[in-house]
Amino acid sequence: MSEIKTIATLASHSALQILKGAKEEGFETIAICLRRRLGVYERFRHFIDRIIVVDDFKEIVNKDIQKELFEMRAILIPHGSFVEYLGIENIERIEVPIFGNKKLMIWEHDAWRKLELLEKSGIRTPKLFRKIDEVDRPVIVKFHGAKGGRGYFVARNSEELRNKLAEKGLDASQLIIQEYIFGTPMYFHYFYSPILKRLELLGADIRYESEVDGIKRYPYPVEDYTFTVVGNIPLVLRESLLEQVFDYGEKFVVATRNLIPPGVIGPFCLEAICKSNLEIVVFEFSGRIVAGTNLYVRGSPYSWLYFNEPMSTGRRIAREIKLAIEKNALNKIIVG
Amino acid sequence: MSEIKTIATLASHSALQILKGAKEEGFETIAICLRRRLGVYERFRHFIDRIIVVDDFKEIVNKDIQKELFEMRAILIPHGSFVEYLGIENIERIEVPIFGNKKLMIWEHDAWRKLELLEKSGIRTPKLFRKIDEVDRPVIVKFHGAKGGRGYFVARNSEELRNKLAEKGLDASQLIIQEYIFGTPMYFHYFYSPILKRLELLGADIRYESEVDGIKRYPYPVEDYTFTVVGNIPLVLRESLLEQVFDYGEKFVVATRNLIPPGVIGPFCLEAICKSNLEIVVFEFSGRIVAGTNLYVRGSPYSWLYFNEPMSTGRRIAREIKLAIEKNALNKIIVG
Amino acid sequence: MSEIKTIATLASHSALQILKGAKEEGFETIAICLRRRLGVYERFRHFIDRIIVVDDFKEIVNKDIQKELFEMRAILIPHGSFVEYLGIENIERIEVPIFGNKKLMIWEHDAWRKLELLEKSGIRTPKLFRKIDEVDRPVIVKFHGAKGGRGYFVARNSEELRNKLAEKGLDASQLIIQEYIFGTPMYFHYFYSPILKRLELLGADIRYESEVDGIKRYPYPVEDYTFTVVGNIPLVLRESLLEQVFDYGEKFVVATRNLIPPGVIGPFCLEAICKSNLEIVVFEFSGRIVAGTNLYVRGSPYSWLYFNEPMSTGRRIAREIKLAIEKNALNKIIVG
Repeated sequence: MSEIKTIATLASHSALQILKGAKEEGFETIAICLRRRLGVYERFRHFIDRIIVVDDFKEIVNKDIQKELFEMRAILIPHGSFVEYLGIENIERIEVPIFGNKKLMIWEHDAWRKLELLEKSGIRTPKLFRKIDEVDRPVIVKFHGAKGGRGYFVARNSEELRNKLAEKGLDASQLIIQEYIFGTPMYFHYFYSPILKRLELLGADIRYESEVDGIKRYPYPVEDYTFTVVGNIPLVLRESLLEQVFDYGEKFVVATRNLIPPGVIGPFCLEAICKSNLEIVVFEFSGRIVAGTNLYVRGSPYSWLYFNEPMSTGRRIAREIKLAIEKNALNKIIVG
Repeated sequence: MSEIKTIATLASHSALQILKGAKEEGFETIAICLRRRLGVYERFRHFIDRIIVVDDFKEIVNKDIQKELFEMRAILIPHGSFVEYLGIENIERIEVPIFGNKKLMIWEHDAWRKLELLEKSGIRTPKLFRKIDEVDRPVIVKFHGAKGGRGYFVARNSEELRNKLAEKGLDASQLIIQEYIFGTPMYFHYFYSPILKRLELLGADIRYESEVDGIKRYPYPVEDYTFTVVGNIPLVLRESLLEQVFDYGEKFVVATRNLIPPGVIGPFCLEAICKSNLEIVVFEFSGRIVAGTNLYVRGSPYSWLYFNEPMSTGRRIAREIKLAIEKNALNKIIVG
Repeated sequence: MSEIKTIATLASHSALQILKGAKEEGFETIAICLRRRLGVYERFRHFIDRIIVVDDFKEIVNKDIQKELFEMRAILIPHGSFVEYLGIENIERIEVPIFGNKKLMIWEHDAWRKLELLEKSGIRTPKLFRKIDEVDRPVIVKFHGAKGGRGYFVARNSEELRNKLAEKGLDASQLIIQEYIFGTPMYFHYFYSPILKRLELLGADIRYESEVDGIKRYPYPVEDYTFTVVGNIPLVLRESLLEQVFDYGEKFVVATRNLIPPGVIGPFCLEAICKSNLEIVVFEFSGRIVAGTNLYVRGSPYSWLYFNEPMSTGRRIAREIKLAIEKNALNKIIVG
């Protein structure tokens, strides 16, 4: 394993950034690419050395692909679509080294355990309601395991909640009922380096969502709209917020270390609402690279505070692998 | 013509970017500048070698200016305000070389032909309604030739449309009646290189529009507001959208090649709505550099995937001219 | 004073940018840091040479801290939180050199004098109403000295205004009653160099405000929401707006020169609404560096038009100090 020379990833989500960064750090690169998306990734052969074509990402567990990845001495970089595309059971079957803590990936698959991790970390989170009768303020109702906000809805009080559940034929026990936090969404891109033992803030973004971010253009009332993420917009934070942002980041590192040792490795994201009293409330996390980092292929207002060279999160991952190889410490960044 | 040594443009729209980029590629530069705007462009004499002062951009067709441009061995770069300021008939009279395909500029002047080009290209576009009775969903109604959204209006069904037309005293035959697409606006900045035979994606943006982007601040209902573009905000796209984005770009290149040979040359923009099911619907195009590229004077998250140096669209144009000179192929980038 | 070798600032607002820029220009750096924020600034010791820990920023006037700053031959850079944290009376007591025109800082503390300065400059400002009866359009009502929009409210006519004042128990004489301008907010980052005798435009931004920028996500009507700035989003301006933007900037320089000689020194910001007819109306200014410049730690689409190296506003301040030292002209940048 000390002889890693290639960085591989699924051609989706943040693959261009990851592979570009890998090339900048001197690695060979492999994109595992859906046949219908070859038209995108073939354009970037100047930093993608090898494209392995598949019809379904699940083919990655096939013997011939595993063999090729081993022969190329590859490490796989998981991103936001990794677990979604492969499924937990397939990830367990992958024998090629995967960057990060595999147990965190599995943990992350369970919405309740995610909330538990945030709560145990001491990070401020929205109040959770276990019973409808306890609801004493507006709430947002989420479905266990739902993707991209599909089916989320809001109720202003327990009565409205009860009616909506009845109307939709839902049982409260299937649902996550969280206090609705008024404020603005913010996404913080962190990187925890087990090699440097350092938490870095590499950027922040706002999501651009269809349809909600276009509704203002329609001159009539719209009762119902969706929140599908279709892009990302750059953001810098009010500097006084950094106190909470670093505090939360450190708390997340410690909580994962305690609950899922050795804890988070590399990039993660806290997904939050900033209230008007400047309190940040975290409603979700991602234990891997998030797509918002694609904004910062050439570095962010934060990465430039750390590095005197352009440093994307993708490149930062490759840099960490390089440091681990140099220090003969790959076991610190490939776990589980 | 093989001796082009100067890049000239009208001092407006994206002129600073174009001239800065030209200087970076080693060209002499000329700004043709309205007298009242000298106060802006005089500040950038470190990359503007010559300012030709006019009281009206149409003076560009005057003999003395044409003569000077010829003597400087200049090429004119058209931008979003070029046709608007000069008028089609004047563009025909310009004898100085113009970057790009002049026939596309003229084609673009006709809203119906623009729609025809998009439809023939196979790009997904909003459904067009020729008759009021056929309207079976919300529609947006545009005036042939209207600029910047002036006078656009929305109707939710055929009855409302009929009433609004009557109220405004309008005849449906003057109008473009398009399906209203719910989703978020997105603008894709492409560059087609006839020299490298390559389509590049150089960036994406969101427009910042007065008054619509300020209405949220007003605490009372507002019935009517405008959509005047006053700036641009950076955007990266969800990576899985790139499949459609490149497909559409290629389709546009092919369609222009078939309908207006040799087709589009250099920068163009597809102006789209991304629906919540991730379908991209293109409602408009620009056959030249768009102002959104001004965000990326120092390169974009996409340009850095192609170039290991800062590459604005303005500089990319200059680079293409330089490549054409080197390959003795100016006839591929100056057409019509 | 000609022997300045250190740049110091309060660890807040735009301190990271200021100190990073100072280091890039070869200065020693000092952060005066609240104990509870050490967790943030300790992370950036690679460009912060010395951290002076305080429990309250007002301690800066204490003899031992003043002495240390003198011994380090430091200059203090005021930022948006400087006067707010220290109070006018303490600023008068600081003997260490302060970058800029101290009299402007004091002037700026008075909302009425700020308006007076803008009006005398000839910059377009919202109509001011001295009497309720004169109100003939929607107005925004601000409290003298209120921070961050707290307590601002809107009234659509004189009757509504009268009712709201009665309801809130307010007296019109305490209030600033301004015409409500419909359009989009825009913030212009300028730098006036007394050494180069040059006005530069270093960037533009949009503020990201809690709760207003999140309200669209809530599916029910919200009657009341706040405007607390929690971040900033990058913006480029329609190029034809630069005519007004530079004109206003120059007018501001001249007005401050006349009213508060020698006038503004270094960074300032005009805070405006752009109407749909492209008129820019300025409702506020900041006589110092604004937090929106934190977006451009690595330069902005505008700074790259001036400099062939990354130039943040923070670095630009350090550059100006360096130029002043070289030209033996520190008296031009440290006044009052």
